[in-house]
Amino acid sequence: MTDRPATREPAQPNLEQALNLPRIAIESTEPTLDEGRFAAKATIGHPVNVRTRIFTDGHDQLAAAVCWRQKGEETWRRARLKPVGNDWWEGSFTPTQVALHEFRIEAWWDLYETFRQELSKKYGAGVPVGLEAEEGRRHVEHAVKRAQGETRAVLEDAMNRIHHSHLIEEKISVLLSPEIAAAMEAADPHEHCSYSATYPLDVDRTRALFASWYELFPRSETDSPERHGTFADVIRRLPAIRDMGFDVLYFPPIHPIGRKHRKGRNNSLEAGPNDPGSPYAIGSEEGGHDAIHPELGSFEDFRTLVEAAAEHGLEIALDFAIQCSPDHPWLKEHPGWFAWRPDGSIKYAENPPKKYQDIVNVDFYAEESKPALWEALRDVVWLWVQNGVKMFRVDNPHTKPLPFWEWLIADIRARDPDVLFLAEAFTRPAMMARLGKVGFNQSYTYFTWRNTKQEMAEYLTELNRAPLRDCYRPNFFVNTPDINPFFLQTSGRPGFLIRAALATMGSGLWGMYSGFELCEGAPVPGKEEYLDSEKYEIRPRNYHAYGNIVWEIAQLNRIRRQNPALQTHLGFQEYACFNDNILYFGKRTADLSNFILIAVSMDPINAQEAHFELPLWEFGLPDSAQTYGEDLMNGHRWTWYGKTQFMRIEPWQLPFGIWRITPPGRDPDLPVGQ
Amino acid sequence: MTDRPATREPAQPNLEQALNLPRIAIESTEPTLDEGRFAAKATIGHPVNVRTRIFTDGHDQLAAAVCWRQKGEETWRRARLKPVGNDWWEGSFTPTQVALHEFRIEAWWDLYETFRQELSKKYGAGVPVGLEAEEGRRHVEHAVKRAQGETRAVLEDAMNRIHHSHLIEEKISVLLSPEIAAAMEAADPHEHCSYSATYPLDVDRTRALFASWYELFPRSETDSPERHGTFADVIRRLPAIRDMGFDVLYFPPIHPIGRKHRKGRNNSLEAGPNDPGSPYAIGSEEGGHDAIHPELGSFEDFRTLVEAAAEHGLEIALDFAIQCSPDHPWLKEHPGWFAWRPDGSIKYAENPPKKYQDIVNVDFYAEESKPALWEALRDVVWLWVQNGVKMFRVDNPHTKPLPFWEWLIADIRARDPDVLFLAEAFTRPAMMARLGKVGFNQSYTYFTWRNTKQEMAEYLTELNRAPLRDCYRPNFFVNTPDINPFFLQTSGRPGFLIRAALATMGSGLWGMYSGFELCEGAPVPGKEEYLDSEKYEIRPRNYHAYGNIVWEIAQLNRIRRQNPALQTHLGFQEYACFNDNILYFGKRTADLSNFILIAVSMDPINAQEAHFELPLWEFGLPDSAQTYGEDLMNGHRWTWYGKTQFMRIEPWQLPFGIWRITPPGRDPDLPVGQ
Repeated sequence: MTDRPATREPAQPNLEQALNLPRIAIESTEPTLDEGRFAAKATIGHPVNVRTRIFTDGHDQLAAAVCWRQKGEETWRRARLKPVGNDWWEGSFTPTQVALHEFRIEAWWDLYETFRQELSKKYGAGVPVGLEAEEGRRHVEHAVKRAQGETRAVLEDAMNRIHHSHLIEEKISVLLSPEIAAAMEAADPHEHCSYSATYPLDVDRTRALFASWYELFPRSETDSPERHGTFADVIRRLPAIRDMGFDVLYFPPIHPIGRKHRKGRNNSLEAGPNDPGSPYAIGSEEGGHDAIHPELGSFEDFRTLVEAAAEHGLEIALDFAIQCSPDHPWLKEHPGWFAWRPDGSIKYAENPPKKYQDIVNVDFYAEESKPALWEALRDVVWLWVQNGVKMFRVDNPHTKPLPFWEWLIADIRARDPDVLFLAEAFTRPAMMARLGKVGFNQSYTYFTWRNTKQEMAEYLTELNRAPLRDCYRPNFFVNTPDINPFFLQTSGRPGFLIRAALATMGSGLWGMYSGFELCEGAPVPGKEEYLDSEKYEIRPRNYHAYGNIVWEIAQLNRIRRQNPALQTHLGFQEYACFNDNILYFGKRTADLSNFILIAVSMDPINAQEAHFELPLWEFGLPDSAQTYGEDLMNGHRWTWYGKTQFMRIEPWQLPFGIWRITPPGRDPDLPVGQ
Repeated sequence: MTDRPATREPAQPNLEQALNLPRIAIESTEPTLDEGRFAAKATIGHPVNVRTRIFTDGHDQLAAAVCWRQKGEETWRRARLKPVGNDWWEGSFTPTQVALHEFRIEAWWDLYETFRQELSKKYGAGVPVGLEAEEGRRHVEHAVKRAQGETRAVLEDAMNRIHHSHLIEEKISVLLSPEIAAAMEAADPHEHCSYSATYPLDVDRTRALFASWYELFPRSETDSPERHGTFADVIRRLPAIRDMGFDVLYFPPIHPIGRKHRKGRNNSLEAGPNDPGSPYAIGSEEGGHDAIHPELGSFEDFRTLVEAAAEHGLEIALDFAIQCSPDHPWLKEHPGWFAWRPDGSIKYAENPPKKYQDIVNVDFYAEESKPALWEALRDVVWLWVQNGVKMFRVDNPHTKPLPFWEWLIADIRARDPDVLFLAEAFTRPAMMARLGKVGFNQSYTYFTWRNTKQEMAEYLTELNRAPLRDCYRPNFFVNTPDINPFFLQTSGRPGFLIRAALATMGSGLWGMYSGFELCEGAPVPGKEEYLDSEKYEIRPRNYHAYGNIVWEIAQLNRIRRQNPALQTHLGFQEYACFNDNILYFGKRTADLSNFILIAVSMDPINAQEAHFELPLWEFGLPDSAQTYGEDLMNGHRWTWYGKTQFMRIEPWQLPFGIWRITPPGRDPDLPVGQ
């Protein structure tokens, strides 16, 4: 590896280089990641907010634009930026294609505007401006040469009027007129035009930002632990999942399960003869990552399920877990892809403190792995894409090489940009962010471990700020087969409602592992794991059990679908609520046409009361203004008078409130955005 | 201009590129500026503190180093980094050459340390480790092949001991021994070694960071306004300036002064026949930037002065003001370097709201200017370097193109890296920082406009943090010929002492324009300008006038020379002092061997009292500890008992206190650093 300067520009230029350096400084451009090393994330139909610092020597007026295009296109599209103070400029554009894009900033000296402002000032002050009139004429004269069509006609006319007028006032009025200003802008030679670097921007489809995941083990879709559920059984459950409002249905691995070192119930090291084993122990005589566990069904059955799901508005997401049971065909076919110990064994996998005695890991950098293993894994993903899967939940990606993900995700998405990857990493913050940078479209989060008002507000705020804002889309899973949160183990039904409200209102992406709607929470004592974990056994459920929260979940998902402000984690703002147990925040669209206020009591036991502030200032309203409120859970409506209000939350009823606020003068019945 | 990706690495790599990407992520490396686009600043003999994030997939131990060298050198020097938590690593190195340097981070998998920790854990837990012993033997075997000299001997011996031993305990004790660990580290193959980009680092001489500037108009070194002072007169004043403790003597421009549009007294537009004009109106029949105003002396006189100054420990700094009086020879010789108006005139210079009717600016991007004007200006600087000047105060650099400065400073310093440039820009923050980035070694600041405790503490804190910390060395001028601060206009002698204390203690760089030591502050009413400004007339002074603060200034400069903690603006920390009028802070060397506490009352009128906290925790001392204090202004000594102390500041005595604190067990009489 050679020494690699970080940027393409020399730190200390020679004369020729310096003469070609941009005269205008453009720096601190957002959204960018590590100065363009990685693509920032955007979502189709959502504005990309651009912010940058632009300045130059001297006192002439500047103008600037953001230019963007799909990678590979010739032509740039442009949107003007506006100065917002202290050399910051802002603007936005809205991508309309799912594809890798690129953007850059252009800035130039706006010579005519500079001239015009000076002329206007001097003329207004009664200073003689004969010389300025002649300078203006020359400006226009030069512009005519460059101009074409309508612009040229306007400027030629202006030239004539200046030329034939004997009154300085007339000349000046031509030079200051808005029409000439517009024509001069159109013919602007963009003097000293300077360009920022070109930054990559990955534009994803909507479900990258807004989706509701439901997770189940297909084998548990049965009426008895004795009978292995099938894809056909899953099809029978689709209506219920759709009715709860989910749009992604995610399965843990569906591949053949190894027998060697198979885990028994409750993660025991000895499996009984009828124990099905963990689906994460991938691979047996019946095949590996490219095969289906025979008891679930065939490839044809799987495709039938994918189609049936689509008819219910549901998309199938699969688990991509790069690991092998000791019975995986690759151990025999490609022994060179593994690191063998002196005794001919392979170390079993660990993700401290967890131990996975039933699986081994591949060695990505073994001589024979480069690139055969990499390509084989890519082919596995591509096989499932060809079978209709466009979403992958990736198991423990932080234990596989970052360059591998960077390549694999780019490779697959170059073939089909609709494919999305969800990173299931629970590790330190730098790696969590980096996985987003290398291409993961969504990420698991620290959500389940943020339980107080302050923790949750800080986390949501951090997710709304650079750099996470630009590289990390949080998928708030309320539980997973691996995470039975301590909070839920003791909080009862109100606790499940609290977490469902926080997840659905906090992020555009949320997920639920089946059993949550039944308020299941029995743990392995002292651990965040489920007792009788479904990872090691077949667990049929009664989905109509007493005390379930199916209706509430359906309501929450319905509210999300009807309110654009809730279809992203962005746009979060905490507001004042004078009770440390109540998290109170707003979510809003950029144009404020959809503004939702959410109050969640973090206390599943006691009633909580608080005064709170309506964010009237966000609408430019005075503290005394009246606004319309609507409770989105029950449809009640009222008028709020003034800024300070009072709430009481009784967790045994509903531990949260979701209110749409509408400023006066706007019809609360109008569809959003009108 | 072609589209220019920001980094050399592709945002979405192909397979071959991915296989060559670093496996270990290295990001957020400091000190860097704009991801390596500009060189961060360092100073010879001062440690460069390196901080970076390093992480990788999996759970193996990492090791890392910072590597640095002079630009152009073959060999890297190395210093190990240490993990400090959450994937951050830190280390430092101290440059010993004044030159452009470069550094990078290296990180690799520490395979033997990983093995050793696992073995140690298992062995301690009584788990069978026969297999591990064999794995360890293979580690050592592989290392022997790579090792040389002493390391090889140690490892061969270890191999033999493992081989011949029949006791597992003996094998393990060899594998875990510190000697083997050290030898294995020496022979480490640096598996998966990854490199950050290479970042530039500009290492300056000491006076870039620590210098005390004294500014005077040579023509005022006279006993009568009728007689123009000369370089010879300045020589007579050198002992007094040295005795005040200054080490840089800076002159406004010393070039011939134009006659056309010459300014009269108090910036009037009409000069009288004997008015000397502003030295910033550079150029007359007698020459331009490469000539000396005849009344000051000859080039020989100038060189004599430079030598005499050096004998007094003083270095001469000149003003580099790129502007021309209408009489400057360049207007005739190089009319193509200027932008002419339709009537054959050139616009006079402005730096809003200031107007400079007696000067015009060059046009850096005129056809004939590129590169002739650039080279001519570079030659001007180089001429003065050849005449012994190594410091330049640059007038209004923000009104000249940034690429010009970037090239000029690099060009001059490539010839003589001891040359330093001070940017006299008073403009918005982005430009202030950028001038540092493009190469200015020191910068004028907002210091004179920070008057409250909170303002000053925030400003000093900002200067101590990235990015300013790495690109901007603040030179705290207490006044300049252009700035007669409002605070000083009304605060009397205590006000001058307050500002002198803040400047000398706050930054390693400070400056004073003559008259300050006499507490001169008569303004043009309502303006921050001096009445009867020396810019437009010859102003002899009585430097022994009653009420002067010469002794205090000398004391402050002496204290700075004796205390390394005060020789930089870095190492600032505000501490608790329960009075909003008293700024109380500490400055300390990295090893705490020199720790100064400074309390400055911002109130020039009333006595102020406060309880304050000694920062005992910085020394690891309990709140009850006793420490030694010394008042560095008067030499008094005492013992402080405990953390909370009391102070009373009487501005009519001295509006500040400067105390050296020494922890118990260290002799307060020892020279610093021992």
